[in-house]
Amino acid sequence: MEHIKDLRWKPGMSSADLVEQYKTTGFQSIELGKAADILYKIWSQKAKLVLSFTSNLATSGLRGFFAQLVELGLVQAIVTTAGSIEEDIMRAHGEQFRITRFNADDIELHEKGHNRIGNILITNDSYMRFEGIMQGLIDKLVADKPVMTSSEFLAKIGKTLDDKSSFLYQAAENEVPVFCPAITDGAIGFHLYMARDRHKEFSIDMIGDFGRIITELSPDDRKAVLALGGGVSKHFAILSTLISGGADYAVYMTSSSGWSGSLTGASTNEAKSWGKVKDDSDSITVIGDAAINFPLAAISALDRLKKEGKL
Amino acid sequence: MEHIKDLRWKPGMSSADLVEQYKTTGFQSIELGKAADILYKIWSQKAKLVLSFTSNLATSGLRGFFAQLVELGLVQAIVTTAGSIEEDIMRAHGEQFRITRFNADDIELHEKGHNRIGNILITNDSYMRFEGIMQGLIDKLVADKPVMTSSEFLAKIGKTLDDKSSFLYQAAENEVPVFCPAITDGAIGFHLYMARDRHKEFSIDMIGDFGRIITELSPDDRKAVLALGGGVSKHFAILSTLISGGADYAVYMTSSSGWSGSLTGASTNEAKSWGKVKDDSDSITVIGDAAINFPLAAISALDRLKKEGKL
Amino acid sequence: MEHIKDLRWKPGMSSADLVEQYKTTGFQSIELGKAADILYKIWSQKAKLVLSFTSNLATSGLRGFFAQLVELGLVQAIVTTAGSIEEDIMRAHGEQFRITRFNADDIELHEKGHNRIGNILITNDSYMRFEGIMQGLIDKLVADKPVMTSSEFLAKIGKTLDDKSSFLYQAAENEVPVFCPAITDGAIGFHLYMARDRHKEFSIDMIGDFGRIITELSPDDRKAVLALGGGVSKHFAILSTLISGGADYAVYMTSSSGWSGSLTGASTNEAKSWGKVKDDSDSITVIGDAAINFPLAAISALDRLKKEGKL
Amino acid sequence: MEHIKDLRWKPGMSSADLVEQYKTTGFQSIELGKAADILYKIWSQKAKLVLSFTSNLATSGLRGFFAQLVELGLVQAIVTTAGSIEEDIMRAHGEQFRITRFNADDIELHEKGHNRIGNILITNDSYMRFEGIMQGLIDKLVADKPVMTSSEFLAKIGKTLDDKSSFLYQAAENEVPVFCPAITDGAIGFHLYMARDRHKEFSIDMIGDFGRIITELSPDDRKAVLALGGGVSKHFAILSTLISGGADYAVYMTSSSGWSGSLTGASTNEAKSWGKVKDDSDSITVIGDAAINFPLAAISALDRLKKEGKL
Repeated sequence: MEHIKDLRWKPGMSSADLVEQYKTTGFQSIELGKAADILYKIWSQKAKLVLSFTSNLATSGLRGFFAQLVELGLVQAIVTTAGSIEEDIMRAHGEQFRITRFNADDIELHEKGHNRIGNILITNDSYMRFEGIMQGLIDKLVADKPVMTSSEFLAKIGKTLDDKSSFLYQAAENEVPVFCPAITDGAIGFHLYMARDRHKEFSIDMIGDFGRIITELSPDDRKAVLALGGGVSKHFAILSTLISGGADYAVYMTSSSGWSGSLTGASTNEAKSWGKVKDDSDSITVIGDAAINFPLAAISALDRLKKEGKL
Repeated sequence: MEHIKDLRWKPGMSSADLVEQYKTTGFQSIELGKAADILYKIWSQKAKLVLSFTSNLATSGLRGFFAQLVELGLVQAIVTTAGSIEEDIMRAHGEQFRITRFNADDIELHEKGHNRIGNILITNDSYMRFEGIMQGLIDKLVADKPVMTSSEFLAKIGKTLDDKSSFLYQAAENEVPVFCPAITDGAIGFHLYMARDRHKEFSIDMIGDFGRIITELSPDDRKAVLALGGGVSKHFAILSTLISGGADYAVYMTSSSGWSGSLTGASTNEAKSWGKVKDDSDSITVIGDAAINFPLAAISALDRLKKEGKL
Repeated sequence: MEHIKDLRWKPGMSSADLVEQYKTTGFQSIELGKAADILYKIWSQKAKLVLSFTSNLATSGLRGFFAQLVELGLVQAIVTTAGSIEEDIMRAHGEQFRITRFNADDIELHEKGHNRIGNILITNDSYMRFEGIMQGLIDKLVADKPVMTSSEFLAKIGKTLDDKSSFLYQAAENEVPVFCPAITDGAIGFHLYMARDRHKEFSIDMIGDFGRIITELSPDDRKAVLALGGGVSKHFAILSTLISGGADYAVYMTSSSGWSGSLTGASTNEAKSWGKVKDDSDSITVIGDAAINFPLAAISALDRLKKEGKL
Repeated sequence: MEHIKDLRWKPGMSSADLVEQYKTTGFQSIELGKAADILYKIWSQKAKLVLSFTSNLATSGLRGFFAQLVELGLVQAIVTTAGSIEEDIMRAHGEQFRITRFNADDIELHEKGHNRIGNILITNDSYMRFEGIMQGLIDKLVADKPVMTSSEFLAKIGKTLDDKSSFLYQAAENEVPVFCPAITDGAIGFHLYMARDRHKEFSIDMIGDFGRIITELSPDDRKAVLALGGGVSKHFAILSTLISGGADYAVYMTSSSGWSGSLTGASTNEAKSWGKVKDDSDSITVIGDAAINFPLAAISALDRLKKEGKL
């Protein structure tokens, strides 16, 4: 039985020390502490981890952290949406995303060719250069193989990127499949559509991806899901664990709580009713911005693994 | 210049009367009042309306309301996720969804074969009967045409349903395309995958759908977007208006506000920076549960149209 | 056992009809339907109702609705914060509150002397005229009785107001006590402080109020609490029911859910652990904006009472 | 002009290193980074800091951190609600608060005498022992001085506590006033009420407190407000800065965003329209759980001050 303890600052305390104190601080800090413990277990026991994230998180600096986790061998499959793919490729090709305010003047931004995602801006110019890159790239890939699953397609793209902080690059290098169940939902959809015009036989095979994700995981594996944000990425990730017998570990980090019945706000408890997460799983939902909560929890687990020589 | 007015009950007041008072009540009630006005303009000016909704809203009783709006000729395209398709078909085949509490015991539910979505339950039995229906149905459709876009596939399914409260049925009858950019993200993904095993040539062509949605809308059209909830459905809907020159009208209803940078919480203002919504559009974001806010705003607009003989 | 039903529009449907459909629609609409039923029970069984609300709700048009409920004899005690008192008096003296946008330019507003509360504005001029009114009024009241509880003080102020839409006026007329446990927390605090300078013996006796609220309610009464928004108002209201044996009925309406451990987001379930709400009470928490949800639920209950001749 | 940078883990990285990376990560992590910078400026420039917090935060382990900040001379005034006072005294007298789950069974907890605040429990026994302590203590204090402001009363209580992690103790030792504008809103209200029964002349003078808080701060001071959570504590804190010419620095940390018009969700921008915060102030609102966000931002600022020899 744990009790609340007084939190105290010590000069130079590490992130891991702080998370240790969070475990007895209260409210979401306790949940974050549990998330850190579960991540430690997932990684020290080498459970198969499906990582899902929404595209805004790949627009943020978390992109580089995802790449690092893949490089460290800590992720076995990724599920995300089209925006993540786009922004990762843009960044790998040198595009920069400016920081702005949440209450920036959107009409003024529009006139200047800046597209806002919360407090981050992507310019029209970045999108135009991206389009040029993609057209050439798709033409090459299609010539080689006109029908690909999204995970094949993204592995091939990853191979072309020369950026250690790209999650597509690291996933390709480390043979971690990246699934994008709604790959046409973005600028990339337009690029695929234009490529189709040039190559009638070109197609992305979504059904093939389904087969792949459910064969990547087996009922005999220890399985884990780490869902950052919600939507299709989260759902496809937990669908994969459902079909293979339920996750043994689950960490959800979301800015939404469950009151509207959306999957985005659905908790790991709700997931138990479905068998997406096992009844006796180690699982937790942390509410807040994953751009704060995820690095904090993950870094604490990484430091622990490092100390124990497990990394 | 509008001022706050005291809200007063009058016996038997209509929903439309209440919404009229909301316009001068305060906070989200004002935004809801604006949403009602915008819906009225969309419908009286016969703007082309793209309606998007998340799957939990189709699980709810809004499903029948969506069907009614399509039947009335008020919707020109639908974008949604796989769960919506599944639950609409289940209901059309007589399945019933039980009402529960948000804090129900999920482990007990799991043991009893009840899957929870907020305060709604779907049984494993419903999913099993649904699987039986889909297998036979897909076999027939594939025999006819092995490669279909999601909107073609869903139109053919809609034709088989005998339920006026089914949005798939009404969409098929009224030639309203239903787009599902992540159609493999659900039980139906598993059914498609098993069908592929029986029919190697079977494929859902997502790229074709992209072509269709952007040709359905032209820069010359007056265009409107009504996004209930967020995620891929919302994004694909506003991507379609972006490509065709921006929406003239936009109503977003979401349980999320913009602080985490997610698309789900993105406002109609943020959409202006992208050109998804025109700078001079009539647009509003209403925060709360769309299961309350949408019927209230829409009914108010419908009553007004009815009174003016425009329905 | 209830099941989800398809929601359908019928021309001219009443608010009450809509709420009836909400009971089988899903998510918060179901909770709102339960709230309507509980309000009906509270009012038809003449339970003693403690109504609490935050000051922004009194700034909104709900102020007039609160007054109407008091006039109808449906409220037995009110708990609120200083802002509510201020805005009610201002409105009773003819001040008008302008409607604005949530993302208005706050520096520009400041320069123009407009103070923003969400999408509502109060001018500095209104505050200055209010100060003039209060100084004279407090001087008169103090001359009569230098030490008053907040509820005595507010009853005397209510008597001076000539506005049927003022909740202070209606409360005074109908002998409903209005408690303000943090009465110095606002412009009025400054007025009280300046009055103290003129009248050294002047004091507001908060402890006396505590005695009054716990004697207004007895363990033998059927008791109900209706908490709109959170904070001190909500806490003082449920403290009063705790001390008198727990509420038989409770409706909480809040924009916050429980994840941060704040009282504002605390549910009626959490209240059971304290005995603030009885274990076997009829109680519900509805999440969203009370400026939408409260009138809708309450009007539905009022129409039902009216139909049954109970009003 | 800042751009997004890839976040990377380095073994043993400090909390301060992580916050440094947050400044270019995205969404609320950027706002948290700004909060850390503002706290650094407040403390290095020795601005007068008014700290407000809701009672749940004092129930949490932040209580000890608040005490530490006061001990370090970094806080010049505190505003809070009754629950904070109660829990701080209980903890100083050795009571322990157990950690539980957010979805604990509240009826079972009630039967066992556990009162739930999010995922923290306080037993009925703790409340009973607290009542015993308070009765004796109030009797002694009243004998000495029957009429006290809340800040006088709390300073005297603080002096009786023998606990370096008590914020009341540290505030009393360091002559930092603690204001509680709604001191009767809690169990302590009941204790005051019972003491009144024994000492008719006993009174808490709230008006006197108002005078004190506005004389503590002058228009010539550099002033700062740090509001953790919302409600009366936050409002009274920013009212004090409003009256003395507006805060030069403001950090709000809240779980609520502004869509419902509540003060709890009001941003530092909204505060500018009022003059609570100066137009040209350094100010930021961080959304999420303050139990996570506050220590992280503050520790980063403390480490920087320490390094520079300013602590």
